Amino acid sequence: MLCGKVPFQTGKDFMKTADLESYFKERKAIVDAALDTEMPAQDVPPQLLHKAMRYCVFPGGKRIRPVICLAAAEAVRGSVETALLPALALELLHTYTLVHDDLPCMDDDNTRRGKPTCHVAFGEANAILVGDALQAMAFAVLAKTPVSSSYTHRQLVAELSHAAGSQGVVGGQVEDLAVGNERPTADMIELIHRHKTADLFSASARLGGITGSADENEMGLLTAYGLNLGLAFQVVDDLLDANERDGGPKGDDRKKNLSCLSVYSPEEALGKAQALVDTAVVAAERLEGPGVGPLIALARFVVERTL
Amino acid sequence: MLCGKVPFQTGKDFMKTADLESYFKERKAIVDAALDTEMPAQDVPPQLLHKAMRYCVFPGGKRIRPVICLAAAEAVRGSVETALLPALALELLHTYTLVHDDLPCMDDDNTRRGKPTCHVAFGEANAILVGDALQAMAFAVLAKTPVSSSYTHRQLVAELSHAAGSQGVVGGQVEDLAVGNERPTADMIELIHRHKTADLFSASARLGGITGSADENEMGLLTAYGLNLGLAFQVVDDLLDANERDGGPKGDDRKKNLSCLSVYSPEEALGKAQALVDTAVVAAERLEGPGVGPLIALARFVVERTL
Repeated sequence: MLCGKVPFQTGKDFMKTADLESYFKERKAIVDAALDTEMPAQDVPPQLLHKAMRYCVFPGGKRIRPVICLAAAEAVRGSVETALLPALALELLHTYTLVHDDLPCMDDDNTRRGKPTCHVAFGEANAILVGDALQAMAFAVLAKTPVSSSYTHRQLVAELSHAAGSQGVVGGQVEDLAVGNERPTADMIELIHRHKTADLFSASARLGGITGSADENEMGLLTAYGLNLGLAFQVVDDLLDANERDGGPKGDDRKKNLSCLSVYSPEEALGKAQALVDTAVVAAERLEGPGVGPLIALARFVVERTL
Repeated sequence: MLCGKVPFQTGKDFMKTADLESYFKERKAIVDAALDTEMPAQDVPPQLLHKAMRYCVFPGGKRIRPVICLAAAEAVRGSVETALLPALALELLHTYTLVHDDLPCMDDDNTRRGKPTCHVAFGEANAILVGDALQAMAFAVLAKTPVSSSYTHRQLVAELSHAAGSQGVVGGQVEDLAVGNERPTADMIELIHRHKTADLFSASARLGGITGSADENEMGLLTAYGLNLGLAFQVVDDLLDANERDGGPKGDDRKKNLSCLSVYSPEEALGKAQALVDTAVVAAERLEGPGVGPLIALARFVVERTL
């Protein structure tokens, strides 16, 4: 299998695999506990909606976007405490996009993370509304971020709404659907990957940076880190998807999304992912706070993940 | 027809019908011009998405929510300039809820404001994404509001996200769908009307108030104004819907939504709407800025509208 462990040569060995695992576990626990606190309980009316929202958010995946946000804050000497609410906003927003992407008229996925997708469990109308409410909640949570200047607040909301909007995640999904049976070019694929995935990775790093009062240079490095990592993440996703379709046990009736494997061989795609991660690592190495090690380890993990 | 002109006795005659018409026309022109400026042009990629978003936003209806927001700002001595971006955010958010409510799995409406609904014109997947992007854009526009304190920014985003979220508009739609064929009670209907409609009317008045630095007392009056007006608006909507179904020319395949006419006679419903508007007017009369006259005239218009 091509997308297995890849021996990266860049950067220093900031974290061993075991360290990264415990780091992820600890950060996921922080994020999950805070999500649990911020989201209305299942017995708050309308109960059906709150139950469905929690069904989609928990147990969740690795919480990569919030973890990037927290590490980015620490990489510019900010704090986990100040970056926590933006980190939750990112996860709520990401979860809403998954719920809508899974719908029958989009990717038509029946399972996600080993359980029935939201529309299978709660019906199509409720799934649309769950996504809508999760997006609203992302901004509600973001608004609570304890920063002191109006400018900073404006930056946070502008950042997330731009990444989420017509020239970010939603734009990418529209472009993806519009490709249809057309033969895509490498440029088209990169553009779609950028909007569908990399914009939110970049926003994750940038939101952390904003809460840590990053200067212009640091924001540029965090942007480069997030964008390159996001693009690498999507290439690896395409490799994993192809691997799964070739006989993996988790296949379902998922419509085939645009994949970079329609223009690259698996070897080329892996090389591309590796180069993108290298670029992300180089950007992270130029930062100085204690979050740098985790950012680098995270970047490597993204390409090395075989799950 | 019962929902025709109703002679209200409360308050003074702040505006004649002719004044209100020109006031509405002028305010709609301000809102429309600003929406046109804030929304990406049709030739900005992804063109299909931006074309579809503009298709839904223009020409639009009377822009009641933005007009309330601007008048509320002026009713507490704020300015149209400062309230304008929140006013646009309200219209973008309202438009997204219409696009999603019209979907086949929700109300299944084929026409809106005399033209094909978004999913009929652009397909179901694109309609979901148009709604998603309009919600993101509402927060992007809100974030640009020129206020100086972080607290004020937080209030604006908290206000809109709460009205939009699981305990606001989306919650109301979930509750509405959940009623199904059950026989609703008057309390259930009021709760659903409150969340589906009145919460956003209240947010409209409150966002205007926040930009005008309203004090606690004024915010209370604006809340009362918005909530009562929103409830009245929904009762009148039910009356208009019933009238339309009884032989009006605009009938389509709309699924029957929960209507207050399932628990009230048309006479009772009209009396209820009148009482709600009276309460809204009493609240507005206790404010002192130049927006008070328009707020009162607007409240009357809501019940008097026969279009």
